Amino acid sequence: MTLSIPESDLAEKIIRGDRRTLARFISRVECGDHDAETILSRLYPHVGRAYRVGITGPPGAGKSTLTNKLTMRFRRAGKKVAVIAVDPTSPFTGGALLGDRIRMNEIALDEGIFIRSMATRGSLGGLAQKAVEVADVLDAAGFDIIIFETVGVGQSELDIVKAADTTIVALVPESGDSIQAMKAGLMEIADIFVMNKADRTDSDKAVQALESSLQLRDHTAESWLPCIVKTVSIEGKGIDQLREQIEGHRAYLETNGGLQKKRRQRETEFIKKIIAEKWQRAFWTEAREHELNRLAALPHSPYHVAEQLLNFADPAHRL
Amino acid sequence: MTLSIPESDLAEKIIRGDRRTLARFISRVECGDHDAETILSRLYPHVGRAYRVGITGPPGAGKSTLTNKLTMRFRRAGKKVAVIAVDPTSPFTGGALLGDRIRMNEIALDEGIFIRSMATRGSLGGLAQKAVEVADVLDAAGFDIIIFETVGVGQSELDIVKAADTTIVALVPESGDSIQAMKAGLMEIADIFVMNKADRTDSDKAVQALESSLQLRDHTAESWLPCIVKTVSIEGKGIDQLREQIEGHRAYLETNGGLQKKRRQRETEFIKKIIAEKWQRAFWTEAREHELNRLAALPHSPYHVAEQLLNFADPAHRL
Repeated sequence: MTLSIPESDLAEKIIRGDRRTLARFISRVECGDHDAETILSRLYPHVGRAYRVGITGPPGAGKSTLTNKLTMRFRRAGKKVAVIAVDPTSPFTGGALLGDRIRMNEIALDEGIFIRSMATRGSLGGLAQKAVEVADVLDAAGFDIIIFETVGVGQSELDIVKAADTTIVALVPESGDSIQAMKAGLMEIADIFVMNKADRTDSDKAVQALESSLQLRDHTAESWLPCIVKTVSIEGKGIDQLREQIEGHRAYLETNGGLQKKRRQRETEFIKKIIAEKWQRAFWTEAREHELNRLAALPHSPYHVAEQLLNFADPAHRL
Repeated sequence: MTLSIPESDLAEKIIRGDRRTLARFISRVECGDHDAETILSRLYPHVGRAYRVGITGPPGAGKSTLTNKLTMRFRRAGKKVAVIAVDPTSPFTGGALLGDRIRMNEIALDEGIFIRSMATRGSLGGLAQKAVEVADVLDAAGFDIIIFETVGVGQSELDIVKAADTTIVALVPESGDSIQAMKAGLMEIADIFVMNKADRTDSDKAVQALESSLQLRDHTAESWLPCIVKTVSIEGKGIDQLREQIEGHRAYLETNGGLQKKRRQRETEFIKKIIAEKWQRAFWTEAREHELNRLAALPHSPYHVAEQLLNFADPAHRL
């Protein structure tokens, strides 16, 4: 697809919040369009104002309804909200309840809300990086709150959540649920826990179990202690408290310098990913691909072949 | 941990199938012990005899019971079977039903069965690579069948399944389940479908729906057409048919050269990953890490910083 508007205008249009340009450009970022980089560089001075919230948890924890309700609540408070959903089990991206889809369509008519679902398939660990890039674009476009919604399984999903300023882990009172979360590494990354579907009879017991496992976490007097918010997201119950907790965590991070530290860390990680990708593109010249195929056909160990390729001089490799 | 036996004996012990050495060495591979490479190189001439089966599917599809029953069936046919479970929702690695755990412990007493669960957390996309390395070790140790069990969500999980010769996608007759599988990219990678819990009343309808969506797949006269096996894995029903289908797919791949092609492809991908990792380790010298932190503190775009670092000359970088 060729765009009729010049690239320089494009960045400006995005910063002004032009919806159609925004949506189109995000598609280019998602597809891994290498030319998008020039525009991303232009957008960069405008990045850093949005607050990023990650919502994760096992399938069936009601993450999408939670995201939905939270979006509406922030919106009513006058915030512009963008949602990046990376979740094959979510109504945004996967098997959907029709009702949820329609509700999301209604939301989509509001100019102050932007929803983007991203596929979980893609090139070599590129998903997390792309989700961050899309968030940067939305940040530059003036969205105040960016919500990443993702199922808490798999490394790339965890990477996405790590790109958030505040991470919410949603659980349901199902037995073993919190154990699963622990095993999947969700316990350590949570700033806030949500016990969703808290109208169930077994909910108090589940909250207690979660509380005791939280007490096992290392913490100092200054460190943030994750709280547990009880919600019935389908009825909108507990969403106000959740928003308050998010604001509380934000204030905590802003006061003690944690936000700046978190973002600096995020940026250096991002730079490392860019470097790795750029190097890959430059390294795999036609000559090297050819040499790889030649060597792989011989009875060598892959480690030996790797060494040989790293020592293979290719004049076309201009790094 | 320092090992008392010399490294040269270690490779031999693994090839002879010494269980304790095997388990210890796999731990080293999992931890990313760089010295493990020398031994892996020694093992490599013995790699390539095992047949690799991937089992994936949405949470709740009964993958672990299926893996369990299939393991027993192969075992009874005299095969040595190794299971690599990478699944936070599985009884092997995650929230477990006690019954399953006990059953697995019984299995674990059999010398002809080796079970290893791998955490889904780890360094930068390294999980899939490590799973392949662990499979190579088990292959060299003389296991005939290696089963990868993983939940079909997330890129690294898909990468693991791609490392299999035959890929099984397990589904249950739940509505929307097959749609989810489609969205998650599982439909294209399946060589065999399992409709598990096929004793449910809605199972025939689900099989029909799956059949019609399969007809949309591109295929030529020579290409493998995925079949659908109905199982009730908890009762062991359909497991024989599943094993027959696996053998059928294997025979198909061996006849038309597909197995060799698949394995060649897997090897070149593996070599590429080794190269990328080696390069990363060599590139990120102390001086470059320092320069990264210096540059990241300045108001530059991450793309600009990446360029500068790629041009940063460091005498300590010996690639």
